[in-house]
Amino acid sequence: MVHLLWENILSVRKKSPLVHNITNYVVMNTTANALLAIGASPIMAHAPEEVEDMVGICDSLVINIGTLEASWVQAMLQAASKANALHKPFVVDPVGAGASAYRDTVLSQLVALRPTVIRGNASEIMALAHTNKSATKGVDSTEQSNEALTAAVVLNQKFGSIICISGAQDIIVSKDHYVQVDNGNALMTKVTGLGCTATALIGAFLGCIEDQQQAVISATALMSIAGEIAAEQAKGPGSLQTILLDTLYTLTEDEFKNRINLTTLYEK
Amino acid sequence: MVHLLWENILSVRKKSPLVHNITNYVVMNTTANALLAIGASPIMAHAPEEVEDMVGICDSLVINIGTLEASWVQAMLQAASKANALHKPFVVDPVGAGASAYRDTVLSQLVALRPTVIRGNASEIMALAHTNKSATKGVDSTEQSNEALTAAVVLNQKFGSIICISGAQDIIVSKDHYVQVDNGNALMTKVTGLGCTATALIGAFLGCIEDQQQAVISATALMSIAGEIAAEQAKGPGSLQTILLDTLYTLTEDEFKNRINLTTLYEK
Amino acid sequence: MVHLLWENILSVRKKSPLVHNITNYVVMNTTANALLAIGASPIMAHAPEEVEDMVGICDSLVINIGTLEASWVQAMLQAASKANALHKPFVVDPVGAGASAYRDTVLSQLVALRPTVIRGNASEIMALAHTNKSATKGVDSTEQSNEALTAAVVLNQKFGSIICISGAQDIIVSKDHYVQVDNGNALMTKVTGLGCTATALIGAFLGCIEDQQQAVISATALMSIAGEIAAEQAKGPGSLQTILLDTLYTLTEDEFKNRINLTTLYEK
Repeated sequence: MVHLLWENILSVRKKSPLVHNITNYVVMNTTANALLAIGASPIMAHAPEEVEDMVGICDSLVINIGTLEASWVQAMLQAASKANALHKPFVVDPVGAGASAYRDTVLSQLVALRPTVIRGNASEIMALAHTNKSATKGVDSTEQSNEALTAAVVLNQKFGSIICISGAQDIIVSKDHYVQVDNGNALMTKVTGLGCTATALIGAFLGCIEDQQQAVISATALMSIAGEIAAEQAKGPGSLQTILLDTLYTLTEDEFKNRINLTTLYEK
Repeated sequence: MVHLLWENILSVRKKSPLVHNITNYVVMNTTANALLAIGASPIMAHAPEEVEDMVGICDSLVINIGTLEASWVQAMLQAASKANALHKPFVVDPVGAGASAYRDTVLSQLVALRPTVIRGNASEIMALAHTNKSATKGVDSTEQSNEALTAAVVLNQKFGSIICISGAQDIIVSKDHYVQVDNGNALMTKVTGLGCTATALIGAFLGCIEDQQQAVISATALMSIAGEIAAEQAKGPGSLQTILLDTLYTLTEDEFKNRINLTTLYEK
Repeated sequence: MVHLLWENILSVRKKSPLVHNITNYVVMNTTANALLAIGASPIMAHAPEEVEDMVGICDSLVINIGTLEASWVQAMLQAASKANALHKPFVVDPVGAGASAYRDTVLSQLVALRPTVIRGNASEIMALAHTNKSATKGVDSTEQSNEALTAAVVLNQKFGSIICISGAQDIIVSKDHYVQVDNGNALMTKVTGLGCTATALIGAFLGCIEDQQQAVISATALMSIAGEIAAEQAKGPGSLQTILLDTLYTLTEDEFKNRINLTTLYEK
């Protein structure tokens, strides 16, 4: 399994999937840089006049609602529908789910289009499944990943999407398989948009890996391990961001295989 | 006094205020990172459909007109009105005041809502008080902070706002007290958006410190001292930005107390 | 010639031209920082209500269509027309030319206003001249710079613009003179928006250098040499971006003159 995950990382470097991102203003630069660092090619475009053309030339689509507004929502829905029509994978990042009624309305429209993958923190996944008992505190998770597992299973059954819950541990839930990735470092929560970066990397892997569940696990492990290495070398959150991009670019097979900490939580 | 300022920094780290930012595209990433580095939690949202919800869950509001446009202005006015209705503090950053007629019209609407704090460079503060004799040169200050003191007093008397003038020296003007912070480093002017970052930090401190004048002085001193330390270690403006975020995260009591250079200019 | 180019770099540092940017969300921060690092002053503003005022106070205008949408296009056209009316230089970056029909329509409107300079990669320049036989792969060039030379000549003859083709070698085409700059480093392609940065630097040089062809060569050489130095010191694309900004700020006459690799390809 670990060797296959590493092979997937090599595939992204070799095939350089073209990833169309409709994402938020905060992370556009760092997301594009992370995609380049792993060997993918980013496109950022959101005009309703052209998003369908962009989906047409891309290998996958990433939708992130961080700084949403009406015209962007229109573009997201158009792009997701086009991806479905062309049988191309798309991933949704439900940033701040539960923080406003508007955000929840938009998300219900997006998930109805049955994303290939949904990645969020525990609070967001629970808000999306309407199982969130506690109030969302902005875009930071106030729940532990484990508590969101039930919500993830509900979402997977309802929309068929692979669900990735980010947190101290990351959990990837598909129909027949729940896997936990136990890498990363708490300092990563002090850098804005690393969850959004994880979502974008998932998009890249979906763009060139056949087995979608493996694609999500590979991307998640790559992000967590690179973040872990970067955090150990960083003097604070500023240098973490810089070293993370370097590490995504330079990560070796040994570093990956020596650090990866995978657990199968459930297998049918 | 200095000890109280340090206690305020510890309060932000401990209470992690949730700060709603409606700010410009240039600085969204670095502002969010600075807020995380000092221990606060940023939200970035600007859709008129949800800004009032966001104000409702946040501890304070930051409005920055750097890259304004009509729909954003609407959101800013809605959010500021909601903050007033909920008695939550809000800070306005009048980026580029005086550079266009449109910018001045928008600013007159915003300041009429009586911001808790207004922070700008000398040119911007003077333009806002209509006392600017020289043309604004874009977003860079062409006036010395001291010359803007009169303008700050006018603004404070007219709108009740605490005024923070940024520059080689920072001056904080409230009704009964003018204070000067003499920290920082000229290299900081070669990094985009550090004034915007200072404004965001003021927002965070307002979100959890009772004494608003002290909140502004604390935030200003933290920013200037962290920038001063970062500039001394930096090889240029690129590394200054990175080290600044690290320093905001790691700053110690000794570093803060040994460097802070406060002068009371006036006390009633 | 080399000495004149260095003199131009010193001119920018001394005269600090004010550059109005209507650019994409991905690069706004890094572009503003690059302009500050070379000594210029950036303005970022896109509201149709104020772009003409901004052109009025600026020395040059930079238009980059990376993340275009209808209201921004309106602002771009207004600003370019105003620049023409005031005889101020403007540069166009045709990001992603050929990637969508919408993008091509917008570009045909922009180039009809006869930009002072157009800078793009080989694919974009070929798409713009309608000589592109291969499909654009997003915003990355899939053609070698040399193959785009014909397209550049076509564009120069049709619109009078100086054309700058970025790539492993950069080629600058004006009516009577084709020059090649052979500096840079392949790692630069793993950092988002360095082409956009090059465009912004061209804008700055146009803002204070009389000889426009020399302005473009100076900016291109500065960018390529600073990138080359940064790439040699970087551990990956993250640190390249940081060191690039430091190097743009600190670059010395010796570094510039020892590294510059200029070839005249054609002279009338």
